[in-house]
Parts: sequence; C-alpha cells; structure tokens
Amino acid sequence: MNSNPTPLVIGIAGGSGSGKTTVAQKLLHRVGPERIAFLPHDAYYKELAGLPPTQRAAVNFDHPNSLETELLIEHVQALKRGQPVELPIYDFATHTRTEKKIPVAPRRVIMVEGILILAESELRKLLDVKIFVDTDPDLRFIRRLERDLAERSRTTQSVIEQYLKTVRPMHLEFVEPSKRYADVILPEGGHNLAAIDLVGTHVEALLAD
Amino acid sequence: MNSNPTPLVIGIAGGSGSGKTTVAQKLLHRVGPERIAFLPHDAYYKELAGLPPTQRAAVNFDHPNSLETELLIEHVQALKRGQPVELPIYDFATHTRTEKKIPVAPRRVIMVEGILILAESELRKLLDVKIFVDTDPDLRFIRRLERDLAERSRTTQSVIEQYLKTVRPMHLEFVEPSKRYADVILPEGGHNLAAIDLVGTHVEALLAD
Repeated sequence: MNSNPTPLVIGIAGGSGSGKTTVAQKLLHRVGPERIAFLPHDAYYKELAGLPPTQRAAVNFDHPNSLETELLIEHVQALKRGQPVELPIYDFATHTRTEKKIPVAPRRVIMVEGILILAESELRKLLDVKIFVDTDPDLRFIRRLERDLAERSRTTQSVIEQYLKTVRPMHLEFVEPSKRYADVILPEGGHNLAAIDLVGTHVEALLAD
Repeated sequence: MNSNPTPLVIGIAGGSGSGKTTVAQKLLHRVGPERIAFLPHDAYYKELAGLPPTQRAAVNFDHPNSLETELLIEHVQALKRGQPVELPIYDFATHTRTEKKIPVAPRRVIMVEGILILAESELRKLLDVKIFVDTDPDLRFIRRLERDLAERSRTTQSVIEQYLKTVRPMHLEFVEPSKRYADVILPEGGHNLAAIDLVGTHVEALLAD
C-alpha cells in the first residue's frame, strides 16, 4: 500500500441514532476496510477506575469531557505522519480500558466517527471532509430505544430517562450546533444510498489519483 | 460525445440568496460546460401577456404556480432520451418569452437548478442526485439585498417589502419543507469548496465510467 501521499481525513458526525455508524460502515464496505484507518471516538472514553462504582453511573457519557479527545487527535496526527497507532478498547461494564488494544496501520483514508467530533475545534482542523448525518429527533430516539431494548437489555423507562437527562440536552448543547461546521449534511443517515454513493465515489476518486 | 448512456440528472435547490447558483456555476466550470445540459427553472416562468400590466406586478414569482414546470419536466425527459430541447428566455421587463430560444443538446449530465425543484414531486422523480444548498436566512436576505441593489436598481425598502410579502412566506411554505427530499445538504452555498469538490469529483467519476 502506498503510504506516501498525505491521507485524506474524513469525519462523520451526527446525533445518537442518526445512522452515522451505518454511514461509516457502508463507506468502509464500499471503499474497502483495508484502505481505511477507522477511529471511532467512543473508543476514547476516559477511564473511571478512580471513581467509586456508585458515582460511575452518574457520569454524563454524552458530554465532551467524558472523552479523551486529545489522544484521538494524537492518533490522527500519527496516522497522517504514516505511523501506526493503538486504538483503545473500552469496557463499559468496568468503565476501564482493557489491556488489549487494536493496532491501526496508516492508510490512505483516516475515518473518524462520533457524535461530538465536529464540536471539538482542534479535531475539526484535522478533518478534510466534514460530514454530518442529520436525522429527525423522533426517529433518532426510536432507533436508540429499539437498539437499547434489543442489544443492551434496558427497559423502555430507563432509556427514556437517560435520553431526557443527558442525551437530549447534550445533543442540543453540543451536537446540533456543530452541524454548521459540516461540509455536507446527509439527511436520513444509513438509508440515504444516494449520499453514501456520492461520498463513496469521492473517496474512490481521491484514492485513484 | 457519447450520448448512449442514460444521462445523470442533478438537481440543485436552495432558497433565494443561498448560493445555489454559485454552486451550479462552479460545478459547470469544474466538470466542463460542454458536458452538462443546464436547465435553470427560472427560464420557465409563465407568460403574463394576458394580464393587464397593473396586475403583472402583483404576481407572486416565488409561488410554484408562476412556473411552467411541466415544460421543464418534458425537457428533462427529452434530454434523457437523447433529444435536444429549446430553453425559453424570459423577459422580465415584459413578462413574456422572447422569440429567441437557447438550443440545449443532450449531454452526459443534466443539471436542473431552482428554488422549487425539490418541491415538485414529478420533477423530483427525475433527479438522480438531489442537492439542497442551505444558508442561514439572514445571510440569504443580505445577499439578495446586495444583489438587487447592485444589479436591479431597486431600493432597500422595495427589496424588504418583496422579501416579507412573497419571498419569505413562499420559502417557509415550499422551499424549506422540500429540503427533506435532498440526498445531500450543502451548508453555506458557493463558498463551501469542500462540498463543491465532493459533488464535482462524484460527477467526474460517473462521467469517466
């Protein structure tokens, strides 16, 4: 793989349940995972090992301070210089990082994904293409509810409480205002095949140069 | 020019002053005007010759009914079949179409531009890529004001009156709701070079196929 040209850095943001992960996965599949270094922001949650377990549950995981964005920035910069990095793995049960890490090699494309990546000015400066996946809030809540019921054994009431207590306020305070930094806004997330096609062709054309 | 493959139809919508014309012009320049058949919706204003001059001034030019969208649709269909069309020329002084028309030959790309093109369901069905140029309303008003003062010898007060009387209500009723049909939303119009680059590369990649 030719690692000489400066990699293209793509950022995919959008609210919880917007479909941004689906967009990222479809782009990975289309462009080829072997050509993309993928850094999800939520791998960079801060360790809460120093906090007593009762306080861990009260942490606001939708606030920018809960993420170690500085480390993500270092990793993007290293990959741009052609150096490999080690993606942390976060264990949500213990709120610590596991000993194991995922080696990520430099690629022609670096893809950064997360609800808050356009809200962080230092990170934003590193992004060549800033994408915001925009989906109506009722649909975002419904997707989150369905996912949490199916995959995380939560009750409807606990999903509603978390949504109203942290997800929605943090969305309005940090995620929604960051939309204005986007170069392109993709409505309806992962179901928007025309948009995925557009971004996918763009990336492929840049890789073919 | 190879006219055998079905042309790609791109629609560029957005409010008055959004910068959509700049986006269209930059795409024309980038992809090459010789490869694009360009159909601006506002060439299709209906003739008002049957109306007395006093009533012509009262026509709401921001309402979908003021445009002969059926003819634009026929033209897109003809170009898709590989047949040339004749773009009308509208004389805003007399509110009639001139005898002269602009011949438009079939091309690999058909570009349709106008504030209302995503608000028309029959037209929308013909569009392969639906773009909405989204700019904050204060900036859109300022651009419109500057343009009308510089190019159309209008007074500030008459621009404000027209904006409040027809432009803004029609925007809220027809243009803004049509945004949800877009495949991609481009913030900040013609100054958004990353977005123009994205769409331009996409079109070029499709043309290279």
